[in-house]
Amino acid sequence: MIITLALDAMGGDAGPEMVVSGANAALQDAHGVSLRFLFFGQESVVQEELRKFPKLKAISSVIHSDIIITNQTKPAAAVRSGRKSNLGMAIDAVEKGEAHAVISAGNTGAYMALSKVILKMLSGINRPAIPAILPTFNGKTVVLDLGANVDCTPENLVEFALMGEAFARQLLKIDRPSVGLLNVGSEELKGNATVQAAAHFLRELSDFNFQGFVEGDDITAGKTDVVVTDGFSGNIALKAIEGTVHLIRHFLKESLSSSLRGKIGYAIAKPAFKELQKRSDPRLYNGAVFLGLKGIAVKSHGGTDAVGFANAIKVAISMVQQNFIKNIEERVALLTSQADS
Amino acid sequence: MIITLALDAMGGDAGPEMVVSGANAALQDAHGVSLRFLFFGQESVVQEELRKFPKLKAISSVIHSDIIITNQTKPAAAVRSGRKSNLGMAIDAVEKGEAHAVISAGNTGAYMALSKVILKMLSGINRPAIPAILPTFNGKTVVLDLGANVDCTPENLVEFALMGEAFARQLLKIDRPSVGLLNVGSEELKGNATVQAAAHFLRELSDFNFQGFVEGDDITAGKTDVVVTDGFSGNIALKAIEGTVHLIRHFLKESLSSSLRGKIGYAIAKPAFKELQKRSDPRLYNGAVFLGLKGIAVKSHGGTDAVGFANAIKVAISMVQQNFIKNIEERVALLTSQADS
Repeated sequence: MIITLALDAMGGDAGPEMVVSGANAALQDAHGVSLRFLFFGQESVVQEELRKFPKLKAISSVIHSDIIITNQTKPAAAVRSGRKSNLGMAIDAVEKGEAHAVISAGNTGAYMALSKVILKMLSGINRPAIPAILPTFNGKTVVLDLGANVDCTPENLVEFALMGEAFARQLLKIDRPSVGLLNVGSEELKGNATVQAAAHFLRELSDFNFQGFVEGDDITAGKTDVVVTDGFSGNIALKAIEGTVHLIRHFLKESLSSSLRGKIGYAIAKPAFKELQKRSDPRLYNGAVFLGLKGIAVKSHGGTDAVGFANAIKVAISMVQQNFIKNIEERVALLTSQADS
Repeated sequence: MIITLALDAMGGDAGPEMVVSGANAALQDAHGVSLRFLFFGQESVVQEELRKFPKLKAISSVIHSDIIITNQTKPAAAVRSGRKSNLGMAIDAVEKGEAHAVISAGNTGAYMALSKVILKMLSGINRPAIPAILPTFNGKTVVLDLGANVDCTPENLVEFALMGEAFARQLLKIDRPSVGLLNVGSEELKGNATVQAAAHFLRELSDFNFQGFVEGDDITAGKTDVVVTDGFSGNIALKAIEGTVHLIRHFLKESLSSSLRGKIGYAIAKPAFKELQKRSDPRLYNGAVFLGLKGIAVKSHGGTDAVGFANAIKVAISMVQQNFIKNIEERVALLTSQADS
C-alpha cells in the first residue's frame, strides 16, 4: 500500500522550506512504508525547495493555488474560499480519496473550519477537538482540547471526554482509559458552572471510567489516561508545560557549565542527558489530529521546525495504518448512543 | 520593631503539626527580626505541638476557637461564622492592629471571602487576586490570578493587571513593569470575548506598559514582568508548571541512575544539581498574598510542608517590612484614577 499525504506547503512560521525538508526527513525515516506527497501551495516556491531533495521530488506532486491561507486569514474567510484555497484543496484531497491524510502547520482556526465543512463531523459530535499526548511519570496522557475551542459548553466538554477516551483506547492501547476533567481543585464543589455540569453528566455514564476532577499537576503526574478541558485552559496548560521543560533544561545547562565539577560530571554522564533530552522533547509529541472529523487531518505546531513537522507526518502515517477513523467512529458511536439514552 | 503574625493553626493538608514546625523554621531563619506568633485554632492540639519547640512557645500565644474553618467549609458559611471562627479571628487580629499579617494554608475560598469582609478592599478594586512569583529565563515573573476567581469579567482582568503592575513594582523593584494578558495566541484577534475586551481597555491606558497578549510558554520565558489571567486558567497553568518541574527532575534522576556513567557523572556534578534543585523548587515561591485587601493576608499552598509554610511566613514578614499595603494602595489609586478618567 502506498500512503498518500496532502501537505499544506505554505503553513507554519517557517513556511515551505520547513514543510519540504520536514517531508524529506519523514521520507528518510519511513522504513518499509511507501509514501507519496501532494504539496498544496505556490508551485514555483515549492518546486524550488523540492530541487534540494531529488528522492523526495520523485515521489511528490505540487498542486498550485493562487489563494493561500495565511495566519491572518479569518476562519469565515477561509470557509468562503472553500476548496479553492491551497489548504481547502489539501483537505479536499482527503475527502475525495486522493490522499489518506492532510497535514498543516498553518492557521489553526481556518484549518479546523475548513476541515469541518469539507470532511464533515462524526455522528453525535458537534465540534472537533485537538488532543495532545504528553509524557508522564508512568507513561503517557492524552490532553484535549488544546486550542481548537476557546469557548466551551458542558456538552462540548462531554464530547471531548468521549472522543478522548476513544483516542486513548486506540493510540495508547488501553482497554478502559480513565478520564479526568481539569479543574482548580479535585473536590466536587470546585470550579465554574461549565465543569460542574459536564462532571455531573459524565458521572452518570455507565461503562465509562470517569474519575472526576483533576488539577494542573495531575497532567504530568499521569493521574488519569485522559484529561479533558476547554481549548483556552488546555492551550495555556500545554504551552506552560513546554515552556517549563525549556526552562529547567536551561537551568540545568547553566548549573552544569558554571563550575569545573559540573562540566566534568556532564561530560561523563552525557548519554544520560541525551536520554533526558529525548524523553522530554516536546517536538516528539508534535502532530495533533483534529478529533471528531470523518477524515485524518493533522495539525503541526505553527512554530515547529523540520524535525517537528516530520513527526506530525509520522503521526498521520501511523493513523492511516491503524485505520484510525473507523475505530474512533465505532467507539464514539457506542458512547454517544449511551449518552443519549 | 516586633512583627506579630496571626497564623491559622488548623489550615493545610498536614494541619497543626506542619503549621507549628513551619513557624519554628521561620523563627530559626529570622536573623535579627523580632517575631511574635498568634496561633488560632484548637488550643490543646496546638499547645501539644508547641511543646516540641520551647523557643517558639516562649514567643507564641494560642487563641482558642470552637469553630474551625476546614476545606469543606463553604465560603458563605465561613462568612456567616465571621469573626467567631479560628480563621476569622486570625484575620480580625490584623484588622484590629493586633497582628501585622495573617497566614493560612487552609481553604482558599473561605479565606478570601472572610478577608474581603473583615479587612475590606482597596478603593477601585472589587475582587482580590492571588499572584505568584515564578522563575524565568531572565529573572522572575508575577502571574495572577492563581485561583481566587474562577469566573472573570473583563473588568476583573483589568483590575488584576493594575494590581499586578503595582505588585511587580514593589516586589521586583522594577520601575515600569511590562504587563501581558494570557491568551491562546499573541495575535490581536485571538481568544475569547473576555480577554479581547480587557485588552482593548488596557491598550488605552497611558503610562502603563501593556504588551498585549502572551502565551503559556511566555510565562517561563519571562516575556513580560506581569502575566494576567483568570483564576481558572491561572491555577491550571501554575500547577502544570509545578508538575512539569517534578516530572523533569524525575526523568533526570531516572536517566542518571540507569547507568554507571550517569551515576559517576552525578556524583561529580552534585553541587550543580543541588543548585538546580534550589532554583526550580516551587516551594521557594510559596506564599501568595491576597492582592487588593487593606491588610496583609498570605495564602500558603494547601499541600505544603513546614519548609513551604516557613517561606509563606517569610513572605509576610518581608511585606510588613516593606510597608506593602501603603505602597500598593498608592500605586493602585494612581492607576485606577487614570482608568476612570
